[in-house]
Amino acid sequence: MKKFEEKTIQSELKFKGRIITLQVDEVLLPNGEKSNREIVKHPGAVAIMALTEDKKIILVEQYRKALERSIIEIPAGKIEPGEPPEVTALRELEEETGYTTRKLKYIQSFATSPGFADEIIHLYFAENIEKMTEKADLDDDEFVELMYVSIDEMESLIRNKQVYDAKTAFAFLWLKNYLKEN
Amino acid sequence: MKKFEEKTIQSELKFKGRIITLQVDEVLLPNGEKSNREIVKHPGAVAIMALTEDKKIILVEQYRKALERSIIEIPAGKIEPGEPPEVTALRELEEETGYTTRKLKYIQSFATSPGFADEIIHLYFAENIEKMTEKADLDDDEFVELMYVSIDEMESLIRNKQVYDAKTAFAFLWLKNYLKEN
Repeated sequence: MKKFEEKTIQSELKFKGRIITLQVDEVLLPNGEKSNREIVKHPGAVAIMALTEDKKIILVEQYRKALERSIIEIPAGKIEPGEPPEVTALRELEEETGYTTRKLKYIQSFATSPGFADEIIHLYFAENIEKMTEKADLDDDEFVELMYVSIDEMESLIRNKQVYDAKTAFAFLWLKNYLKEN
Repeated sequence: MKKFEEKTIQSELKFKGRIITLQVDEVLLPNGEKSNREIVKHPGAVAIMALTEDKKIILVEQYRKALERSIIEIPAGKIEPGEPPEVTALRELEEETGYTTRKLKYIQSFATSPGFADEIIHLYFAENIEKMTEKADLDDDEFVELMYVSIDEMESLIRNKQVYDAKTAFAFLWLKNYLKEN
């Protein structure tokens, strides 16, 4: 998959943060011309569509500074260095919701913003979940509220744009198809 | 939607590029502590699921430097300053594929990476498309190849991770449901 490959002439690091870095790559285009590509590097993430016994979806409301508003998402989190994504998925599920599962199903992975970022999200489905702890174990700068919603309530959250992110939108369509077929 | 609001103490611009900018916001957390948020600003984008008369999906293969590989996506493009998203959608559809439509249907909008970026993608569906021009009208540094694939071929492209981005994955699930219901 190297069609139209853009070879790197040089890569300049412009910003190195806690979570992301930004570099500008000077590239050689397929026609021999040069151009620049602005690229954000991200460690990758997982997201988990978790369903309770009574078919409620577990959601997390949190403030997203980039959007300057709070949105409602499925539980998700960054992959730690060297961590297999399915381990991240179980860890984040328990940290954010207090639940775990012995039945973690891989759904699909995708790049969230291939035009400017290398972030990949790996999506999982957790059924037969079991409560492990009452209290969420969050990072010091993480403030979230858990919600348990039905399929109908979820439709309404999407219409109102309270659910407003790609991974949650995809996971919900996936879930609706899954429930029809199972 | 300001629950758990993080008030900006100060915002520092770290990088200003052609397409994205990066800033670090020092924020006041709900518990009174301070933290930093690394934020990428992006103009926003549209993506179009376009279907030919014989039910083929129009796709675009292109090299994505951020991923260091080529992937296959639905046509998409950045919103120009002040441009209404539906105008961007028709413009990008014609520029990338040579087609237009009098029947553009809005599907849904979502944030692609709310953890670190403000990019919103607006998704549209184009039916009854008409060929306007034979040759794609691309930017100087844009190299793409058009593909026309059936629903079954699309499933296979997703399994092989040749289709590998959030907007295309979502739009395809949406299309499958739409075709079942219409």
